Amino acid sequence: MAEKGILIIISGFSGAGKGTLVKELLKTYDNYALSVSMTTRLPREGERHGIEYFFTDKAGFEEQIAADGMIEYAQYCGNYYGTPKAYVEEQLAAGKDVILEIEIQGALQVKEKFPESLLLFVTPPSAAELERRLVGRGTESAEVVAQRLSRASEESEGIEAYDYIVVNDILEDCVKEVHSIVDAARKSPVRRKAFIKEIRAELKEFSKGAK
Amino acid sequence: MAEKGILIIISGFSGAGKGTLVKELLKTYDNYALSVSMTTRLPREGERHGIEYFFTDKAGFEEQIAADGMIEYAQYCGNYYGTPKAYVEEQLAAGKDVILEIEIQGALQVKEKFPESLLLFVTPPSAAELERRLVGRGTESAEVVAQRLSRASEESEGIEAYDYIVVNDILEDCVKEVHSIVDAARKSPVRRKAFIKEIRAELKEFSKGAK
Repeated sequence: MAEKGILIIISGFSGAGKGTLVKELLKTYDNYALSVSMTTRLPREGERHGIEYFFTDKAGFEEQIAADGMIEYAQYCGNYYGTPKAYVEEQLAAGKDVILEIEIQGALQVKEKFPESLLLFVTPPSAAELERRLVGRGTESAEVVAQRLSRASEESEGIEAYDYIVVNDILEDCVKEVHSIVDAARKSPVRRKAFIKEIRAELKEFSKGAK
Repeated sequence: MAEKGILIIISGFSGAGKGTLVKELLKTYDNYALSVSMTTRLPREGERHGIEYFFTDKAGFEEQIAADGMIEYAQYCGNYYGTPKAYVEEQLAAGKDVILEIEIQGALQVKEKFPESLLLFVTPPSAAELERRLVGRGTESAEVVAQRLSRASEESEGIEAYDYIVVNDILEDCVKEVHSIVDAARKSPVRRKAFIKEIRAELKEFSKGAK
């Protein structure tokens, strides 16, 4: 009996390398699918419906909200952005492990709707390394770096809400680490319901036969 | 900053192959230590104090109980058997992952005293395979096999109390699987307290510097 895929939420400090990590996971293994967001903003050149985003209008999006069709959503610059439930559920049912890259507030909302989701928090090995990466980008002013570090300090308060803390030091190792965490999570009883049900029924049958 | 080892409780159906699994884990990797039980029964030939068992007398054992020195214990054929806390804590402090092979009632007691312990339940791939293994031993009467299956049926009711369900099909794979579950568990926030504390303090320091 096939078990459903796992909904994987990936959060982490800005500068922790979440984006690259997710890209590598999708490239290296074939059990992952990336959640596609829905938005009311217009498509930019090259963006395809169902790939970069699901594009819709305001009425369409609000219909989804009203029908409890969004896992989480927010408004930004007058446009809606969110995660449609249908796509995620479809992928999970097909056995795919669906990755959702969102921040902590969203993550906690998702956890409430999907208690069996797996919450990963990505962090560099130290705060000093985080600073080094942010400064190293060379594109951020000292002020922006300071803001990010201050935001990271706030975010670190919520870290216990996550199931696992993944240290992204060497990318390649980190990709393997996440993959083996997901594999381990598959062995949790909440994700082995079909197996448990089956072996229980079988054992009951055998016990009956024995008496 | 070094983190403590993990207390690993291994339970499972009789015939699931727990003993061999534990032996292979200890042989293959060097992060594990096996918990040594304490008993009031006399040493058999070849048994060494501190290796097979810690040997003591009734008064010594009851002193341990009174001092809350036992993680779990039981009486069997007029002798005490139990798991001394001191040895386990010493090994954990030294960074060793300590394996305790006990059944569900004991496992739940340990979980209460050590909420950060990791509970693994070992099972063959199916009830049919369990029966095959029990019959295959050739040493058990049909009646004993039936009793074991009936007991397995009862035990299967408690399976959700465990953190992970490990299917022991091919031993070698199962050993690797358990090892990677333990590795994943090391990344849980309850087992990364030192890391969290450190990065939080550092981030706070950086944020202060930024303002």
